[in-house]
Amino acid sequence: MTRTVDLNADMGESFGTWSLGDDAGLLDIVTSANIACGFHAGDPDVMAATMKNAVAKDVGIGAHPGFPDLQGFGRRRMSVPNETLGNMVRYQLGAAQAMARAAGGEVRHLKLHGALANMASEDLAMARTCYQAALSVDPQIIVMVLAGTAQQQAAQELGCNTACEIFADRAYNDDATLVDRRLSGAVIHDPGEAARRMVEMVQEKAIVTASGKRIPARIDTICLHGDTPEALAIAAAVRNALLGSGVRLAKANGAVL
Amino acid sequence: MTRTVDLNADMGESFGTWSLGDDAGLLDIVTSANIACGFHAGDPDVMAATMKNAVAKDVGIGAHPGFPDLQGFGRRRMSVPNETLGNMVRYQLGAAQAMARAAGGEVRHLKLHGALANMASEDLAMARTCYQAALSVDPQIIVMVLAGTAQQQAAQELGCNTACEIFADRAYNDDATLVDRRLSGAVIHDPGEAARRMVEMVQEKAIVTASGKRIPARIDTICLHGDTPEALAIAAAVRNALLGSGVRLAKANGAVL
Amino acid sequence: MTRTVDLNADMGESFGTWSLGDDAGLLDIVTSANIACGFHAGDPDVMAATMKNAVAKDVGIGAHPGFPDLQGFGRRRMSVPNETLGNMVRYQLGAAQAMARAAGGEVRHLKLHGALANMASEDLAMARTCYQAALSVDPQIIVMVLAGTAQQQAAQELGCNTACEIFADRAYNDDATLVDRRLSGAVIHDPGEAARRMVEMVQEKAIVTASGKRIPARIDTICLHGDTPEALAIAAAVRNALLGSGVRLAKANGAVL
Amino acid sequence: MTRTVDLNADMGESFGTWSLGDDAGLLDIVTSANIACGFHAGDPDVMAATMKNAVAKDVGIGAHPGFPDLQGFGRRRMSVPNETLGNMVRYQLGAAQAMARAAGGEVRHLKLHGALANMASEDLAMARTCYQAALSVDPQIIVMVLAGTAQQQAAQELGCNTACEIFADRAYNDDATLVDRRLSGAVIHDPGEAARRMVEMVQEKAIVTASGKRIPARIDTICLHGDTPEALAIAAAVRNALLGSGVRLAKANGAVL
Repeated sequence: MTRTVDLNADMGESFGTWSLGDDAGLLDIVTSANIACGFHAGDPDVMAATMKNAVAKDVGIGAHPGFPDLQGFGRRRMSVPNETLGNMVRYQLGAAQAMARAAGGEVRHLKLHGALANMASEDLAMARTCYQAALSVDPQIIVMVLAGTAQQQAAQELGCNTACEIFADRAYNDDATLVDRRLSGAVIHDPGEAARRMVEMVQEKAIVTASGKRIPARIDTICLHGDTPEALAIAAAVRNALLGSGVRLAKANGAVL
Repeated sequence: MTRTVDLNADMGESFGTWSLGDDAGLLDIVTSANIACGFHAGDPDVMAATMKNAVAKDVGIGAHPGFPDLQGFGRRRMSVPNETLGNMVRYQLGAAQAMARAAGGEVRHLKLHGALANMASEDLAMARTCYQAALSVDPQIIVMVLAGTAQQQAAQELGCNTACEIFADRAYNDDATLVDRRLSGAVIHDPGEAARRMVEMVQEKAIVTASGKRIPARIDTICLHGDTPEALAIAAAVRNALLGSGVRLAKANGAVL
Repeated sequence: MTRTVDLNADMGESFGTWSLGDDAGLLDIVTSANIACGFHAGDPDVMAATMKNAVAKDVGIGAHPGFPDLQGFGRRRMSVPNETLGNMVRYQLGAAQAMARAAGGEVRHLKLHGALANMASEDLAMARTCYQAALSVDPQIIVMVLAGTAQQQAAQELGCNTACEIFADRAYNDDATLVDRRLSGAVIHDPGEAARRMVEMVQEKAIVTASGKRIPARIDTICLHGDTPEALAIAAAVRNALLGSGVRLAKANGAVL
Repeated sequence: MTRTVDLNADMGESFGTWSLGDDAGLLDIVTSANIACGFHAGDPDVMAATMKNAVAKDVGIGAHPGFPDLQGFGRRRMSVPNETLGNMVRYQLGAAQAMARAAGGEVRHLKLHGALANMASEDLAMARTCYQAALSVDPQIIVMVLAGTAQQQAAQELGCNTACEIFADRAYNDDATLVDRRLSGAVIHDPGEAARRMVEMVQEKAIVTASGKRIPARIDTICLHGDTPEALAIAAAVRNALLGSGVRLAKANGAVL
C-alpha cells in the first residue's frame, strides 16, 4: 500500500511593506500552507495574496493563528485567560476563512503558531481550548498537531479530524520531544540527511530519535521551512526523496484518532 | 398591508478593559445589531459576548467593519487603496462570521462604520469595493446602506440584497442629505419628536425634510443610538411609537433594488 | 519631627474614545500621578491632557510604563527578553518626558505597571533591567518600588533615588507580601479602616500585617486607586486622616537606600 | 568659501522580525539619519540599535515621526485633528530623545515622514502644528524642511532652527515642486546623473529644474535613499562627487531663516 504524506510550511508572514520568507518557492514544494492571520504576522492584503497563490497551486490552506504580538512575531509567551485564547482563535480562523473563500478556496486545517503552539504542546487545557474554539467555527476542520505532545492528546480527546506532524530539520530525544536547540545536532542543516530521515520515518511509521530508537507514531504531515536558502534546499530535498521512494504527497485529510 | 421596519444600532464598541455604550439596553429595543469587528472597536472577547447576547435576544447580527484605528474609533478618514479596503472588509466580516457561528448565530447584514461609511456614502467606487468584498465572502449578505447616497447606488448596481436606512435623530435637507451638525436643529434631542418623525416617514414611505418636503424613499431600517441616556430614550420612544401605530418590527430581510 | 508622605495613584488610563477612572477627583487627593505611557493605556492626547492637569494641580508627574498590550491593559504577563524590556521602558519614559515638558512640567518618578510590576517584584534581574533603563535616560529619576520586594532590592543595588510604596487597600502577610486577593480580607473596602491603617503604618514606620505584626519599613508613598466610587472614598479618607494626624503630604523626593 | 552640506537618509525602518533597508551601508555615506519612531516603522529595539550605530559613526540623529500606521508604513493620508497631530509628534520625539540619550547621543533634528510630510508640505497650518509641537519639547531642535514648500514657510514663520532639503533622485518642475512620479524622468536612476546634479545645485545654491531653470534656494541637506542597491549606489555617488568637488560634508546645523 502506498504511503501518503503531507508537506506543510508557514506562509504569508510578510506584513505591510515588510517581506519575509520565500512563499513562491515553498508553494512549489508543499501540499499544505499554514497562513498567518494578522495577529503575529500577515495582514489582510498579505493573506489575500497568499490565499490566491495557494489556490492557484492547489496547495491546502490552513489558518495559522498566533498571539497578538507583531513586534515579537508571536514568539513571546503571554498569559492569556483560556476564554480569551479561544476567542482569539475563532477570530483569526474566521478571518482566514473569509479570505480563503474570496480567493476561491477554503480553510482545511488549523495549526497553532509560535509561543501559542509551544505552550499548547505542554498544556493540555490550553490545547483543548484552542481546538474547541476552532471546532466551534468549523466542526470538520483538520487540527494539525505536534505528534506526541499535549496537542495530540487534546485533539484525540476531542475526537476531531487530526493530522500528526513531525519536523524535517529537528532531532528528537528518546521521549519524542525535540532536542534542545542549544545542543549540537539539534537542528539538521544537511538537506541529504533531512531527506533520508524523513523517508525513513514515513516508511517505518515511527519517529527515529537521535540515538536511533524507533517510536511508533502517526505521521500525517512534515513541517518544512522556507525562511533561509538552506531551509528551502532542505524542503526540496525532502520532497524529492519522498517522491523518489514511492511516497505519495497530498494535502492531509486528517482522521479521528 | 402592515408596514414592517427594522431598528438597528451599533454595538460591541467596548475594548479590553474599556466599556462603551448600553448594549443591554439597546438589545431590548432594536431588531438588528451592527457589531464592531476589532479594527476601530471591539475585540474578540467583546465580539463573543455581544454575539451571544444578540442571539439570546433574537436580534439580527451584522458585521460593522471600520478603519484600523482604535485611537480614532474609526472616525478619522484614511486614504487606503481600494484593494486594501476590500481585504479589510473581508477580514473583518470573516472574523464576525466565526464569532457569530460560535455563538449559535450568523451574520445577516453588513454596515460600514464611521469614516469608512462617510467616505463610501460620497464615493461610489469605494462603496462598490466594500460591498463587492463582502459579497465575495457571502453572496447573500444584506448590505445596509444610507438611503439616497452613493452607498445605495453601489448596492443597486451590484444587485445585492439591500436594506435602506434613515436616521432617527438627524434632520434632512431637501436633497436627502443630512443637515450639517453645526446648524441648529440638525440633531433631534426630543424623544417625542424623533418618534413622531419616524412614524411619519415609515408610513409615508418618504424622508420628511426639515422644510417639510417629502422625498419618496425605501425605508427598511432606522438607525438608533445608545451611547447616552438621551439616545436610549429616543430609541425606546421610536420603538414604542412605531409599535403603537401598527408598524411591525423585524430584522431587515433586504431586497434587490 | 513631622512625618512626610506622598500619595500616588495611576492616571491617564483612558484611551481614544474610551474613558477610565476619575482623574479629576484623584488629582485633588494625591501628590504624585503615575501616568500611563501609551503601551497598555493612554495615548498622546490623553497623556497631554493628564500632564496638563497634573501641572495645574502641582501634582508630581511619573511615567508609568507597561507591556505593549492594550486589550489586556498590561495585566497579562509576557515573556520579553531583558534587552527589549529595557528599551520598552526607555521609549515610554522618553515619550512621557516630552509630554510633560510640553505641558510645563517634568517627569519626576517612574513606577512600573500591571504585569510588568508584578513580574519585577519577583524577579530581581528584571527589576534591575527596567530601572537601569530608566536611569540611562534620567540618572536623577525617582524609582517608585513596592516595599520589601525585588523591586526595592534592585533599586537599592543600583543606588538610585528610590521611594518605597505601600498599598492603602491591601492586607499584608507576615512576610510583607500581599494577602492573596482570593482570600477574605485581602482587599480593604472600608474607608475608615484603610485610613486608620495608613496613619498607623506611617507613624510607626512599619507595615502592619493582617495578624498585627509590625515589619519596619521605609514608607515614602502610599498607593491609592480611583477607578470606583469606593476607591475614591478610600483615597479621600486616607488623605484626610493623614493630614488630621499631623502628617505632611508632599511629592516623594526619593532617597538613596 | 567652502560650501558645506549635510546628507540625510531615513533609517531604522525595520520592525520586529522584519528587516528593511541597508542602514549599515547608509551610515558610511550620510551625515544625518532620520530614525523612525515606532508609529509607522521601527520599534524600541530597532531604535536602540540604530541610535547606537549612528553614535558610533558620528552621524547626526534625527527623529522621524509618522502617522500611527504600521501596515501602511505611514504612507496613507489620515485626517487627524491638529491637536492630536502635535501630540503624536511630541510623543515620538520624546521616545527618540530617550533612546538617543541611552545610546550616548542626542536628537539634533526632526523630519516628518511619508504622508505626514506630504500633507505638511501642502498645508501650512499642519506644518506649523507639527513644528511647534517639536519646539515645545526642544526649542533648539533643527527642523528639516522640504525646500520651497509650506514646510519651509512654517519653519520660517516660527523662527526656529531650520535646514532646507532637496532630493538627490527626483526631478523638479519650474515652480520647485517635484515632477509627478508617473512622468518619465521624474525619478533619477543613474548615479552619475544624480551626482552631477547635486554638485551643480549645491555650488549654484539653486534648484536646477528639469527644463534647466535655476531657482535660488537654501540647500542645507540632501535626501538620499538606501532601500535598493541602486539607491545606495546613487547615495555613494553623490557623496563622492560632492567631496571630489570640494564640498564639505557635515551634520546640518540649521539656521533661523
